[in-house]
Amino acid sequence: MTTLFLSADRNLDDWIAAWRETAPDRPILVHGQDDYDPARIDYALTWRPPSGVMQTLPNLKAIFNMGAGVDAVVADPDRPPVPIVRLVDNDLAVRMSEYVVLQVLSHFRQAPAYAAQQARREWTPHDQPSAPSARVGLMGYGVLAQHCAPILLALGFNVIGWSRSKKPSDITLYHGRDGLPEFLARTDILVCLLPMTEDTRGILNADLIAQLSTASPVGPVLINAGRGGLQKSDEILAALQSGALKGASLDVFETEPLPADSPLWDAPNLIITPHVAAVPDPAATVTSITSRMTAFERGDPVAGLVDPVRGY
Amino acid sequence: MTTLFLSADRNLDDWIAAWRETAPDRPILVHGQDDYDPARIDYALTWRPPSGVMQTLPNLKAIFNMGAGVDAVVADPDRPPVPIVRLVDNDLAVRMSEYVVLQVLSHFRQAPAYAAQQARREWTPHDQPSAPSARVGLMGYGVLAQHCAPILLALGFNVIGWSRSKKPSDITLYHGRDGLPEFLARTDILVCLLPMTEDTRGILNADLIAQLSTASPVGPVLINAGRGGLQKSDEILAALQSGALKGASLDVFETEPLPADSPLWDAPNLIITPHVAAVPDPAATVTSITSRMTAFERGDPVAGLVDPVRGY
Repeated sequence: MTTLFLSADRNLDDWIAAWRETAPDRPILVHGQDDYDPARIDYALTWRPPSGVMQTLPNLKAIFNMGAGVDAVVADPDRPPVPIVRLVDNDLAVRMSEYVVLQVLSHFRQAPAYAAQQARREWTPHDQPSAPSARVGLMGYGVLAQHCAPILLALGFNVIGWSRSKKPSDITLYHGRDGLPEFLARTDILVCLLPMTEDTRGILNADLIAQLSTASPVGPVLINAGRGGLQKSDEILAALQSGALKGASLDVFETEPLPADSPLWDAPNLIITPHVAAVPDPAATVTSITSRMTAFERGDPVAGLVDPVRGY
Repeated sequence: MTTLFLSADRNLDDWIAAWRETAPDRPILVHGQDDYDPARIDYALTWRPPSGVMQTLPNLKAIFNMGAGVDAVVADPDRPPVPIVRLVDNDLAVRMSEYVVLQVLSHFRQAPAYAAQQARREWTPHDQPSAPSARVGLMGYGVLAQHCAPILLALGFNVIGWSRSKKPSDITLYHGRDGLPEFLARTDILVCLLPMTEDTRGILNADLIAQLSTASPVGPVLINAGRGGLQKSDEILAALQSGALKGASLDVFETEPLPADSPLWDAPNLIITPHVAAVPDPAATVTSITSRMTAFERGDPVAGLVDPVRGY
């Protein structure tokens, strides 16, 4: 079974090396580097794949994506109708939890204000509520959010969630468009881990921000570690400038890299990171993907199978 | 039973108001504000107490301190030989855990570097190990550190501890001067929560820093949320400048407020906070203290009883 690596990105050497070391029995070819016979490709391994290539592979059996978000794969209208498998991996969940907990605590503990004071050599303590007074709302309650929730609970925060459809959960979970207003009204610190679909595009906007709770002295706060297309950056900027948002963390942007002339760079109380919330580790990712290729070949259940209509 | 509030600080109105609201049946007088008959004082409630006052209280039965660190109380050579009780309180442990987890993650996830890039409008991702690759060493393994440990474990970090004497623990615990070198050699991120005693004064110095592990690409890191006297600031500064330390967080200083002309303010990768790691909440603290006064009066065990020889 031969895999074709399809990516518009350049620096893939680490990934290829990890694949060849971790899965030496699974041949891999790189589109744009290696010559290959399209009829002999069984799997596509994708990372922001260039469009128009997958349709040239007549015997493609499945598409394995190297990230949790498959919007770039689903967006290719000419891809063959084969199963798409997204990355579901404990390493990714660990990394995302580190990012989410760091950003929640940074805003809750007023880190931007203390950093600004340090730059001015100013010693001024501020009133500080403790975690049990604040509510963290996890928007999108999949594998990543479910890994974050118990850590935030152990810190003492109240944690609620919102998901597209009803599902069993240890925390209070609101669902669907009908459940969104109540979820937002009870959220001081919003963490967005939604997938990017036509339903969620631009959901993080002024209207949503206006519905967040203003009960906490340190909120509302907005954290987006999903996709740039989920947010309306100009409306988030305006909310930070007006004080409608007390703070925000953005790891993703409509255009990446974020252009140097973007007004976001020096928005008040905004923490910007360059799409590093959860960068998969090559060796861990390859192991995760090849074990699911084996499951797929045996006809066993495959974790991370995408519903192409739902889009994730 | 009458309590005398003894503090060299000024803004105590919040505390007095919380006491009178939470414990209306326990009279409280404030040294320096109220007239009082020294013979009628049963308890001293202390927060950086002025020296020389406690010896004037002939019927003093116990000293209750409003913080976890009692070094300022123990340091008064003329205090009467009555029991000293320090603050042991879940609210304090919650707040300290917030601070510790925030500082560990800030350095681990390279927050100072990303903040500097943001100020330059620069988009540059950095290699990032994940939590299971790093070891957090908790120096001082009392109530506060024991509250932090499971949260750091849930994030995926390896967690070890060091304490003065042997004690049961869920994590690997080194103890005593003999156990210190091995503990330090296995620590990438050191979190100091030690009490301030003659044994621990200046323990965070160049010699200790040189013994920390250099195995992690993001370490070694030093976090001090104990007391300023535990650290030799000039040696920490030199270690940050030379790269012997990759990062540090200091909440406490030999002189507080930290003077505006201190070279620490702009030391590389140093996060300074103005002694706010765990500021007790007045109502929670009063409830905690008065419930232990009641236990003391009944002859029940009192949590937080200080060993005056050990010093904490």
